[in-house]
Amino acid sequence: MSIVVQKYGGSSVATPERIKKVAQSVIDKKKQGNDVVVVISAMGDTTDELIDLAKKITDHPDKRELDALLATGEMVSSSLLAMAIKSEGYDAISMNAFQIELLTDGTHGKSLIEDINEEAILSRLSEGKIVVVAGFQGISMEGDITTLGRGGSDTSAVAIAVKLNGICEIYTDVDGIYSVDPRLYKEAKKIDEISYEEMLELSSLGAQVMHSRSVELAQKYGIPIYVGLSCSDIKGTYIKGVEEVENKPITGIAVSDSDVAITLRNIEFDTNLLSDIFEAVASKKINVDMISQTAPINDLVNISFTIPKDDLRECLSVIKPFYTKEDIIIDEDITKFSVVGIGMKTTSGVASKIFKIFKQNDIEVKMITTSEIRITCAIKQEDKLKAVNLVAREFGL
Amino acid sequence: MSIVVQKYGGSSVATPERIKKVAQSVIDKKKQGNDVVVVISAMGDTTDELIDLAKKITDHPDKRELDALLATGEMVSSSLLAMAIKSEGYDAISMNAFQIELLTDGTHGKSLIEDINEEAILSRLSEGKIVVVAGFQGISMEGDITTLGRGGSDTSAVAIAVKLNGICEIYTDVDGIYSVDPRLYKEAKKIDEISYEEMLELSSLGAQVMHSRSVELAQKYGIPIYVGLSCSDIKGTYIKGVEEVENKPITGIAVSDSDVAITLRNIEFDTNLLSDIFEAVASKKINVDMISQTAPINDLVNISFTIPKDDLRECLSVIKPFYTKEDIIIDEDITKFSVVGIGMKTTSGVASKIFKIFKQNDIEVKMITTSEIRITCAIKQEDKLKAVNLVAREFGL
Repeated sequence: MSIVVQKYGGSSVATPERIKKVAQSVIDKKKQGNDVVVVISAMGDTTDELIDLAKKITDHPDKRELDALLATGEMVSSSLLAMAIKSEGYDAISMNAFQIELLTDGTHGKSLIEDINEEAILSRLSEGKIVVVAGFQGISMEGDITTLGRGGSDTSAVAIAVKLNGICEIYTDVDGIYSVDPRLYKEAKKIDEISYEEMLELSSLGAQVMHSRSVELAQKYGIPIYVGLSCSDIKGTYIKGVEEVENKPITGIAVSDSDVAITLRNIEFDTNLLSDIFEAVASKKINVDMISQTAPINDLVNISFTIPKDDLRECLSVIKPFYTKEDIIIDEDITKFSVVGIGMKTTSGVASKIFKIFKQNDIEVKMITTSEIRITCAIKQEDKLKAVNLVAREFGL
Repeated sequence: MSIVVQKYGGSSVATPERIKKVAQSVIDKKKQGNDVVVVISAMGDTTDELIDLAKKITDHPDKRELDALLATGEMVSSSLLAMAIKSEGYDAISMNAFQIELLTDGTHGKSLIEDINEEAILSRLSEGKIVVVAGFQGISMEGDITTLGRGGSDTSAVAIAVKLNGICEIYTDVDGIYSVDPRLYKEAKKIDEISYEEMLELSSLGAQVMHSRSVELAQKYGIPIYVGLSCSDIKGTYIKGVEEVENKPITGIAVSDSDVAITLRNIEFDTNLLSDIFEAVASKKINVDMISQTAPINDLVNISFTIPKDDLRECLSVIKPFYTKEDIIIDEDITKFSVVGIGMKTTSGVASKIFKIFKQNDIEVKMITTSEIRITCAIKQEDKLKAVNLVAREFGL
């Protein structure tokens, strides 16, 4: 008997009717002879509504309390799903983070999972129950509620699948992973199989389908993830090891508007200083993505980097010692445009092709960073659609 | 330094604005040099809204899952209040049942509190924090979430006050306890002091101000309870030991429409059978209130009793072995009308006065039960207002 860990996203459980549909889907999996664990997100826009509520109390809600607040969204949906399953005559039990002892490192708003008490789940499965786990949430060593960050339920699901040595299925409101966001490029094609590496580059760069940490975790333990449409038979996408997937020059394009670029001008050219700045930022667990630095003039350099917009205030406060008011530039008008493909390792000329397209079409490139399998440019938001369509067509995505 | 345990009801925290007002009130108490613990109910009608949501999933939600669902209401309000206090520059921390280890007997929907880890609260108080506890909820020995029943946050507050040897203040949307519900009798007077016994009779009979178990608990440990209007200086009501309060023939009137009367006809006159019936009902923790039995005719008796309407379905299922379809009568058109007063112990003629009033005014009495300090009659719901006004006037309430 296999253990199947299914995750259903917020739009799949947005209404009582949809919850009942998910219950049916879960029961079908159980009927096929599997032990089933379901990880569930909050209903529809609940998380945003709770954030709005907190903002009515204070502009800057305490992070511990915000986590305690947000975690209730998944407690609501998990108990409703367990009720729905039970009302159909199948045994089920909802479990919160404290009940499965999903321990985290304690960072509020973006915790890492440290451990899960698999016995708490296995003992219920052995009683024939379908176990419905509230996703997105964990408990710190001190017993505080923490959350795993936006999309964190994916990571809850993968972590549980790893612990239980189970199969992991992520159900969402799209029928798989596309080479480009179909809202930006109509002819976008669905990908049958994608490597962890490519998916990581895509998801950390704004492809909203999967929480990046969930992919990292699956990669680390070699667990394939199936991503598909909720309550449907349409074939989705498998995320697997690189040796198992087809090798194309470019697998996909990802764009993101959620970052802001900070430029510090006339910084002393001193590697210690640079490491101090980025250590200060890292100490707050703020993810710096693109970094670029000009060549030193009179021992002074300009340094630019991008961070998530939400972290701007906190970032500015920790880097305060390192800049003067005149020498900081904050640019919110950026779109991060990335092309990703394992094939880039072996196919040359991808970057030059892209820069040529941009040049010919007056798309200004503000920053550039690259990895072995990715090229990212920061461009103006108004150029986003143009860039996506031109590049997608060029590479036949 | 005293420990003050304040409880705020749902209407006091119905909106973000009211939560901020409560935060101010709590901070004032802290500024006066007290250690403050706040027990909080769910915002406004949240509990009812969650029940409605569950009913959209299934007509008869699983009780364990319903408790898990309902408990989220208090988690939301407690984290918001802690945020509000922190945003005013005072340290605060929200705590759920599992964090203060508020252990219960595990009965879903109406748990009894068995223990609280006072150290979890005291250690936070000693750090200077205001501790905001999610009321109404507990944890069973098995780690399941259970709830204490409607109004259970009162009991959470009293139990914590007992454990911490603190002062207990219950804040609500009325400015104290009235001899009669002012919505039913305009001239109703506020009571300055009332004994535990009287309050118990009143609250278990439908005076919605206090959760009866909270009064029992306060009585058992001799802790006075102050009941007053949220965020106001209007003087409220103290609930105390009987020797400390003034002795009046009648202290108050309580009415309740939430019960249903069940009559079983032609039951064999056999005390074993009777005890079997009521044991079956008690096994489901259904509170039987009024019981009356006719004298036996041919060894057959009729027996009537009242239970909360919500428990009707469950009650009928457990007493199924004891009746035939023809011999059960269910009467939902009853109002329980009760007069309560310690003085009844020493003042005779109260009952006869009431029956005389009822007779003169064509108020039909369907059932009667009495205790040392209480007389309860089941009457038709249409006679409620008439009965309240006539009796309140007669006894100068």
